[in-house]
Amino acid sequence: MPTIGLIGGTGAQGRGLALRWALAGHTVLLGSRDAARAAAAVAKVAAKAEASLDVRAATNAAVAELAEVVGITLPYAGQRVTLEPLAESLAGKLVIECVNALAFDERGPYPLRVEAGSAAEEAQAVLPSSRVVAAFQSVSASALLRVSEPVEGDVLLVSDDEAARKEVAELVAAIADLRPIDVGPLRLAAPIEDLTAVLLAINQRHHTHAGIRLTGL
Amino acid sequence: MPTIGLIGGTGAQGRGLALRWALAGHTVLLGSRDAARAAAAVAKVAAKAEASLDVRAATNAAVAELAEVVGITLPYAGQRVTLEPLAESLAGKLVIECVNALAFDERGPYPLRVEAGSAAEEAQAVLPSSRVVAAFQSVSASALLRVSEPVEGDVLLVSDDEAARKEVAELVAAIADLRPIDVGPLRLAAPIEDLTAVLLAINQRHHTHAGIRLTGL
Repeated sequence: MPTIGLIGGTGAQGRGLALRWALAGHTVLLGSRDAARAAAAVAKVAAKAEASLDVRAATNAAVAELAEVVGITLPYAGQRVTLEPLAESLAGKLVIECVNALAFDERGPYPLRVEAGSAAEEAQAVLPSSRVVAAFQSVSASALLRVSEPVEGDVLLVSDDEAARKEVAELVAAIADLRPIDVGPLRLAAPIEDLTAVLLAINQRHHTHAGIRLTGL
Repeated sequence: MPTIGLIGGTGAQGRGLALRWALAGHTVLLGSRDAARAAAAVAKVAAKAEASLDVRAATNAAVAELAEVVGITLPYAGQRVTLEPLAESLAGKLVIECVNALAFDERGPYPLRVEAGSAAEEAQAVLPSSRVVAAFQSVSASALLRVSEPVEGDVLLVSDDEAARKEVAELVAAIADLRPIDVGPLRLAAPIEDLTAVLLAINQRHHTHAGIRLTGL
């Protein structure tokens, strides 16, 4: 089983994925700029599970060097500056891009325009030698952290590397009850990322944690 | 029950909606630039149902003048040129925008960039005195036309007019088993429209007719 690292793993999304993958038996390296913050996040993850989990605190730089598969769970604003110095360490690796470029104002959530087209296309441009797959954008972080319940929903996978999509599909399927859906090329990342703004708007209006499930599959 | 008109109603989406709303008891005006093409489409719709339906052929101009509620089921490329001369007839009316700005190439379907942000925002800009609600983007036209089966899926509604969203929600709920979801402002139309490219990519890859159903609602 590959060691999975999370760059910017201290937020709810990073901790949620660390928890679920560790429960599935992976060694997880939870990264932060600040090793002390990473350690605090690891303690929070450990407190969620009854069994002992193999989740270890690390700097983002160490995650990029040591993990075999790397998830990006940064806020969008920090993506480029964080990833640029890690491009060499991440060369050749499978990179799972979980970032949404979103903003909020008094009318609610809305997608940010990203020059590269989407956060995932920007990540692929910054990491030209990595195999970037966008995934998990619409999965609720709080659902990932509610460890007593399965996580209901579909995870839409886009990447220009078909083999990489299949590898990520296996890592998605390791989390019950998530279902991986192979969508196609990375240029379809924007609608998938931006759909998260729609789901968050629905959450605000209907006081829920909406997810998506495709029919017909 | 309001008379519903369809501008550019001769395609599968227009015929499908005409069929379903006529079955629900509405009078439907099915429009085209060319009255003869509208009449041919009406004959196709009538052939789908055992009962007699009140679906009438009309020019797009007559639809805009006479219908109380107007759906736009044009190809995106024809939207602006078709709607501009109808703005006065459509002033004050509820306009249901069903258009997707999509294109296809050898890598499959992809969203077109629209200067206004989305096809729906463009329609609202061209029809500033109409109450534009985007809806039905992700509903399969072929499912609408398979009259023996209910149409499974959620219809995401965006508009800057909250009362208009509620009116369209009732027209959605008249079609079994579609479920209307009130999302929020029109600026969220782009991810909803562009999601259709994702669904079409999934259809190609998985040989299906995918739709969306939200979880948590």
